[in-house]
Amino acid sequence: MTKITWKPGTLLAPIPPAMISCGTIEKPNIMTAAWTGIINSEPPMTYVSIRPSRYSHQIISKNKEFVINMTTSELTKAADYCGVKSGRVANKFKEMNLTPLPCSIIKAPQIKESPVSLECQVINTIPFESHDMFLAKILAVHVDDQFIDQAGKLWMEKMGLVAYIHGFYFGIGKKIGKFGFSVEKKTTKEKRKKLLLTSNTPRKFKTKIR
Amino acid sequence: MTKITWKPGTLLAPIPPAMISCGTIEKPNIMTAAWTGIINSEPPMTYVSIRPSRYSHQIISKNKEFVINMTTSELTKAADYCGVKSGRVANKFKEMNLTPLPCSIIKAPQIKESPVSLECQVINTIPFESHDMFLAKILAVHVDDQFIDQAGKLWMEKMGLVAYIHGFYFGIGKKIGKFGFSVEKKTTKEKRKKLLLTSNTPRKFKTKIR
Repeated sequence: MTKITWKPGTLLAPIPPAMISCGTIEKPNIMTAAWTGIINSEPPMTYVSIRPSRYSHQIISKNKEFVINMTTSELTKAADYCGVKSGRVANKFKEMNLTPLPCSIIKAPQIKESPVSLECQVINTIPFESHDMFLAKILAVHVDDQFIDQAGKLWMEKMGLVAYIHGFYFGIGKKIGKFGFSVEKKTTKEKRKKLLLTSNTPRKFKTKIR
Repeated sequence: MTKITWKPGTLLAPIPPAMISCGTIEKPNIMTAAWTGIINSEPPMTYVSIRPSRYSHQIISKNKEFVINMTTSELTKAADYCGVKSGRVANKFKEMNLTPLPCSIIKAPQIKESPVSLECQVINTIPFESHDMFLAKILAVHVDDQFIDQAGKLWMEKMGLVAYIHGFYFGIGKKIGKFGFSVEKKTTKEKRKKLLLTSNTPRKFKTKIR
């Protein structure tokens, strides 16, 4: 292999093609953005970078709140549509058969059909050349309870999440390992197996899961 | 399905378990961070959020530069190790059999074995409660030429990239669609097929590809 040098580009991958909902329950909007990430752990903080020309930019600038909804394979067509069409001319919730669901603190709706939604409040906006970066505090997390097992553990790997890589949407593949697996001692692994706590063995779910 | 409300958490997924290299060719270090993302398109800008206690935080604060290297399934064990062990006590390049390769502008090394490396210069640091956020300009991109076809197109989907979801590493699964597929007209699709430009048909690669 030879590494060759290219001009700068936004080639970070895989990243989440997140569905950003904003507005109100009565007049909601969605746009899709992959320019998002976690910026702080305690307290949980995130951001989304949006072009000033976008309709959602206008709404989020004014209301200072938004929701980051995870995209699944079932939601990919809707996510793509919400990334291409403008809310100025389309009611994207309606056209994509999505349900605006109230959040706990902010007025912006979450997307009911998304398995994980992060309720966010903007604390600062940093203008860059093409995008404005909305820094936000995550106020609450809303999860589909069919992905929580009886022990209260959330199984995000069962959600059919979608990754965005260089202009394409992909499903998630095989599990490779758990954080820390490279230094885990054999005895710990064996202990886990015995206790049936290994990550490959989900406990019973409250409701049927695909 | 019922959405239930949880306390705030960093449940954004999938995100890249990126290998952040810093320091110099002579004294390089790597740490793994999933708190990264794109924050601006033109010019390409990114960030990485790091706890002040980390050894790499000290180096990046001083040198104002780092490299974001994509993790592949082959690199996952090394990425995990670099996320767990401190560079204060381990030479992670050496222990993980990785090669520090010069970048084009900055002094920090890229990881030769990673198929895509983003060469970054810190332009600002924002301190949050648990993490400091290093905002950076992407100065250049270094790509493994075996993933570039004869037409000059980069095939990131062939790289075996890895996604991080809620404490676990996953491979990438099946392709679902291309950005814009939800509104693409049939005629365009057919035209593409005829021209063999469909994304499922890679052109010839210079070198053999897995």
